[in-house]
Amino acid sequence: MQFEITKEYIQQIQQLIAENKNTALLNLLEDLHYADVAEIIEELDTKEAIYLIKLLDSDVTSEVIAELDEDDREKILKRLSSKEIAEEIEELDTDDATDIIAELSEEQKKEVISHIEDEEHAKDIIELLRYDEDTAGGLMAKELVKVNENWNVLTCVKEMRKQAEEVTRVHSIYVVDDNDILKGRLSLKDLLTTSTKTAIKDVLIKKVDAVNVNDKAEDVARIMQKYDLEAIPVVDELGRLVGRITIDDIVDVIKEEAEKDYQLAAGITQDVEADDSIWKLTKARLPWLLIGMFGGLGAASIINGFQGAFLKFPVLLIFIPLIQATAGNVGVQSSAIVVQALANNTMKGEMANRIFKEFLLGLINGLVIASVVILISHFAFHTSFLISITVCVALITVIIMAALIGTFIPVFLEKQGIDPAVATGPFITTSNDVFGILIYFMIAKMILGF
Amino acid sequence: MQFEITKEYIQQIQQLIAENKNTALLNLLEDLHYADVAEIIEELDTKEAIYLIKLLDSDVTSEVIAELDEDDREKILKRLSSKEIAEEIEELDTDDATDIIAELSEEQKKEVISHIEDEEHAKDIIELLRYDEDTAGGLMAKELVKVNENWNVLTCVKEMRKQAEEVTRVHSIYVVDDNDILKGRLSLKDLLTTSTKTAIKDVLIKKVDAVNVNDKAEDVARIMQKYDLEAIPVVDELGRLVGRITIDDIVDVIKEEAEKDYQLAAGITQDVEADDSIWKLTKARLPWLLIGMFGGLGAASIINGFQGAFLKFPVLLIFIPLIQATAGNVGVQSSAIVVQALANNTMKGEMANRIFKEFLLGLINGLVIASVVILISHFAFHTSFLISITVCVALITVIIMAALIGTFIPVFLEKQGIDPAVATGPFITTSNDVFGILIYFMIAKMILGF
Repeated sequence: MQFEITKEYIQQIQQLIAENKNTALLNLLEDLHYADVAEIIEELDTKEAIYLIKLLDSDVTSEVIAELDEDDREKILKRLSSKEIAEEIEELDTDDATDIIAELSEEQKKEVISHIEDEEHAKDIIELLRYDEDTAGGLMAKELVKVNENWNVLTCVKEMRKQAEEVTRVHSIYVVDDNDILKGRLSLKDLLTTSTKTAIKDVLIKKVDAVNVNDKAEDVARIMQKYDLEAIPVVDELGRLVGRITIDDIVDVIKEEAEKDYQLAAGITQDVEADDSIWKLTKARLPWLLIGMFGGLGAASIINGFQGAFLKFPVLLIFIPLIQATAGNVGVQSSAIVVQALANNTMKGEMANRIFKEFLLGLINGLVIASVVILISHFAFHTSFLISITVCVALITVIIMAALIGTFIPVFLEKQGIDPAVATGPFITTSNDVFGILIYFMIAKMILGF
Repeated sequence: MQFEITKEYIQQIQQLIAENKNTALLNLLEDLHYADVAEIIEELDTKEAIYLIKLLDSDVTSEVIAELDEDDREKILKRLSSKEIAEEIEELDTDDATDIIAELSEEQKKEVISHIEDEEHAKDIIELLRYDEDTAGGLMAKELVKVNENWNVLTCVKEMRKQAEEVTRVHSIYVVDDNDILKGRLSLKDLLTTSTKTAIKDVLIKKVDAVNVNDKAEDVARIMQKYDLEAIPVVDELGRLVGRITIDDIVDVIKEEAEKDYQLAAGITQDVEADDSIWKLTKARLPWLLIGMFGGLGAASIINGFQGAFLKFPVLLIFIPLIQATAGNVGVQSSAIVVQALANNTMKGEMANRIFKEFLLGLINGLVIASVVILISHFAFHTSFLISITVCVALITVIIMAALIGTFIPVFLEKQGIDPAVATGPFITTSNDVFGILIYFMIAKMILGF
């Protein structure tokens, strides 16, 4: 069932657009899912994309626009009038509608909203615009099915049918009181099997998980994952039902979180993609390289400070890359494990135990690596006994130190309210580089006594 | 609504277990979600955990066992008889049941299955055990609601109610023909609003996305994400409906994929957690450190080969960490962007364009970094003009080379059928280290002519 876009397929569409063959285009595209149309649009140039968007039905194109990359969407919205944007917005659920409107300029926001004909929809969007996008309020949609606890099953079913028309997927039926306070939920099964005269009060399930409108998006994601929820109601400070969040939005949050950690670990600050402009990519990458550069210059000045030593024992210098690479690798490993444990809330036990464990791990890894290095460098570089000892002791010390720094820094950052994932990046590699080389020369000084 | 486990809370439970106060324990735990109970169990020792599992209802404990970490589950299952395990299995959906049974030894598998009283359940599990866990078959559950296209709405609703008792959440009602071939799906809304005598054939929605039982788990995840599906039916080679996959299982797949990439980038091969044993952590980490070590030794032998040079221009050596760190950082950045583009299927356009873009990016970053380095090293290390030029040219060359290697290797690995994420790890840092230093000395040789 996988839909595959081929070069020929795109060329065919471009040809049809160039020749204004609308009927053929509609035939070709009519059965496609909007997610597939969005993929096609991303392959076209802006003019062609606009042509298709104006040609296709707005119930498809609205979803297509919501599905596009932010950059691609911006290009297309620029070419549409406020009225045309409003028509697309009208077709979307409030959460997607709000996401799109939030990207417009203040002036255009007002214009677009004033063109939305459905007043309820406009009001809902205005409300949603107030919430930070990284909170439950920023994720939720206003579309939901809710019934009053004072109704009976019959009224409830009637009202539900009416409401369900507005809602793409009914996950849960929420029960509120006269003040809109969330009281519980209904099971579809119960509703189907209970007498129509039963009061909702008597069949509602009181246990209902809800999040507060100000809760952080990642906390909502954690809760929904942990409890395997497909939708969760959102309440305000007074406990009033104000919206609901569905799992598909949470899937995006989870993916973005994981990708952000990965990018930070790789030393990329902004959310960039391979297709972004060189300028955007440079902005995302250069700062980290500069951190690395300062680390490198720091290491340079340390080595420079030990000039006397390396003129006397030049062979010491050939092990600098080894010391540095090992320190960096160990640090990144240790911090990645801690960062993931923090992200998944699986950090358990005492800090002292963890530190001790990392110490032991570092010792084991250090001993193995040092033994191999001693053997190889004896045969390859004919290192003297004292030099071998120096390199070994330095390696073991550096590995242990890097493991401890890698463990400690993310925990420290988390406590300071900073995303610990920044620690896995070039930041930790760099500081370990500098410390590693410093330790190496200090140990060399102690053993060789220059 | 967040449930927080405190130290005091765990101590209270341990106290109650020690004193055999079952009623108090039941009172304390009865309203908890199984995911919370699982968190508590993970904090207890095995004996205490077993005590709670034997105390609580099997409809809770079965879910708790399914929720636990593999390691924790193994410890607990070891202490339960095959009959006790079978009782837990009986309560679970077939997908979770199969996952647990799959972890048992061949012998115990047979024993546990023979103790399952519900024969249908046992048969379903035996069928599911045949599928690879990384395929649609390995993810799917047998619990679903299906109706025959030849029924009318009335029969259909009756049958659905019966089937729905077995199914925790009804996502979709699937329609099959007499040979179990998937024909379409029903919308609950249509079902509620159509006359009871209407034939299912006349109301079914023919368009239904399905995956094949042998499709890869990550492809299923991609499809469900792209089309925002909450459940997808699974068909066999003949098109017969054999199961369904729900979004909560896919959330786990997505998370694991993303975490695996992150761990690989950090140089950790196995799926490990901070709480794993030192032995398991060493096995996951040491191999990558050894790769780094061989890289370090390779770099050592390159530097050793240029001994004549560095005795003549010792200042060259202080820039080794800078060259190495920069090469590593750039390589990791470039490869991370490509790995993510490959994972998200957003690699578009020609390879030549991408290479050219990385070249330009490398040039820009290289020029910026080289300028800063020239300035600083002039004042800090009083480097001569020729040395400065050497370091600059080397830096720019190394950055461009690292960017190209970082871009090329993941694409190459993907083509070979190897997970490109391995490229972002110490593997790329290491090869860039070695190449970086080689290039540095070769350029030095050209410019300084030693």
